[in-house]
Amino acid sequence: MPSKIFKTLYRVTWADTDAAQVVHYSNYFRLFERAEEEFYRRLGFSFTDFRTQGLWFPRVEAFCQYKKPAKFNDLLEIEVTVEELREKSAKYGFKILNKKNAQLLAIGHVVVVAADRQTGKATQIPEGIVEKLRPFCEQV
Amino acid sequence: MPSKIFKTLYRVTWADTDAAQVVHYSNYFRLFERAEEEFYRRLGFSFTDFRTQGLWFPRVEAFCQYKKPAKFNDLLEIEVTVEELREKSAKYGFKILNKKNAQLLAIGHVVVVAADRQTGKATQIPEGIVEKLRPFCEQV
Amino acid sequence: MPSKIFKTLYRVTWADTDAAQVVHYSNYFRLFERAEEEFYRRLGFSFTDFRTQGLWFPRVEAFCQYKKPAKFNDLLEIEVTVEELREKSAKYGFKILNKKNAQLLAIGHVVVVAADRQTGKATQIPEGIVEKLRPFCEQV
Amino acid sequence: MPSKIFKTLYRVTWADTDAAQVVHYSNYFRLFERAEEEFYRRLGFSFTDFRTQGLWFPRVEAFCQYKKPAKFNDLLEIEVTVEELREKSAKYGFKILNKKNAQLLAIGHVVVVAADRQTGKATQIPEGIVEKLRPFCEQV
Repeated sequence: MPSKIFKTLYRVTWADTDAAQVVHYSNYFRLFERAEEEFYRRLGFSFTDFRTQGLWFPRVEAFCQYKKPAKFNDLLEIEVTVEELREKSAKYGFKILNKKNAQLLAIGHVVVVAADRQTGKATQIPEGIVEKLRPFCEQV
Repeated sequence: MPSKIFKTLYRVTWADTDAAQVVHYSNYFRLFERAEEEFYRRLGFSFTDFRTQGLWFPRVEAFCQYKKPAKFNDLLEIEVTVEELREKSAKYGFKILNKKNAQLLAIGHVVVVAADRQTGKATQIPEGIVEKLRPFCEQV
Repeated sequence: MPSKIFKTLYRVTWADTDAAQVVHYSNYFRLFERAEEEFYRRLGFSFTDFRTQGLWFPRVEAFCQYKKPAKFNDLLEIEVTVEELREKSAKYGFKILNKKNAQLLAIGHVVVVAADRQTGKATQIPEGIVEKLRPFCEQV
Repeated sequence: MPSKIFKTLYRVTWADTDAAQVVHYSNYFRLFERAEEEFYRRLGFSFTDFRTQGLWFPRVEAFCQYKKPAKFNDLLEIEVTVEELREKSAKYGFKILNKKNAQLLAIGHVVVVAADRQTGKATQIPEGIVEKLRPFCEQV
């Protein structure tokens, strides 16, 4: 169980939908990433800082299970936790719920690696970031 | 090992990329789906037929591992196999390669379920479809 | 000069950007539409009502001039006015500004037509909608 | 009337569509750009060359009129002409047709400017490019 969960809201826009009149399955990954960005912002990370430190966070794995469709105009709540925190990588867990009725629409995760922008090689996640992520780590 | 592999090509367009100057991670799922559509087309399935049969194929699971980035203007080869074929669902496997140097860029899968368009409930994949998918099934 | 301007905010997400490290030019049209949706919501229009009235609002024209690039993480302010209000169509004007420094990034418009969902033909914009749009109309 | 018209094909994929079961209006601009890229490729321009020359081609204006909707699985033909060729900018004209029945779906244009990648300032389009574009210029 996570100690802390980060939550953010998102309103489904027309361009998110497809001809089945639901949010396109690829767009859940954009919602995950948007929530991750909000999460960093809330923690006080400056992306410009990351860059000046010569770091970026490429994704190496992404997964999503679709439970119920999200539709145009739905207000979604996206939950973020840190499922795993390693020396050079983090696994973020996501849940997407319909805010109105609390129905679970999707669950998933992404694995990001800290990488040196010059060499592209995996590198340690800076301690300042690790400290801020730790409270959102799932407890054993 | 699969008996048959379906292969299709795709040229990376500018809109596929993001500020890291690589294809955005969500777009690999669009490439998977595009390849799936080409696969159906090659097998001679008419989407209009699916609809008149009252069927659609929502995705219930999607997964991707990212090995190396795809970049603007890259010519990609996308391979499709049928990893699992069940009564009401199919698991398609995908590989994305750089056509020029045969480097593996990403592997992944999606699980699709045959669903009744009226009720939304899972239903049997029609035998005519199953027959055409079977040669692409991975052998035990 | 418009009597009233509707304003809404949008935070640029990674997926909005392209390999030039700016928001992709097609995405400004998604921002326009998102602002239009927020505008309707603020006016109290229910999209479900539109549908039950058998109406939809296809776009027949779209235009954008790009002044300065929007970048990842920028907070944007999007302004909406009604540039023209006709019996069966409306022309919405948009401005996109960088919220931080008030720089104008883009201006544009879209023309939407009220259409009957069954026949697809242009039809009158319902009076209840016209009344709410009128205060945002640019004055001669 | 243009001396020469560049033509390319595009198959509509599921992710291009929206809940109105037609191609989303913003995606026509992605089709324009994709056609522009194919056009350059056909003319023998290497994007890597542009970059090593320190050039890029930001868009300063985009316009589209929507005549009839494009739908999932439609095979589209996209025509490109050079509507105007100036010292530092080019205006490309686009038509999108349904390949099957030759119906005109959309017409539009984009204006691109040659810019120095370092300074961001407008610069002359290199003569080698101008020469190749000229045959596609509309005649007065």
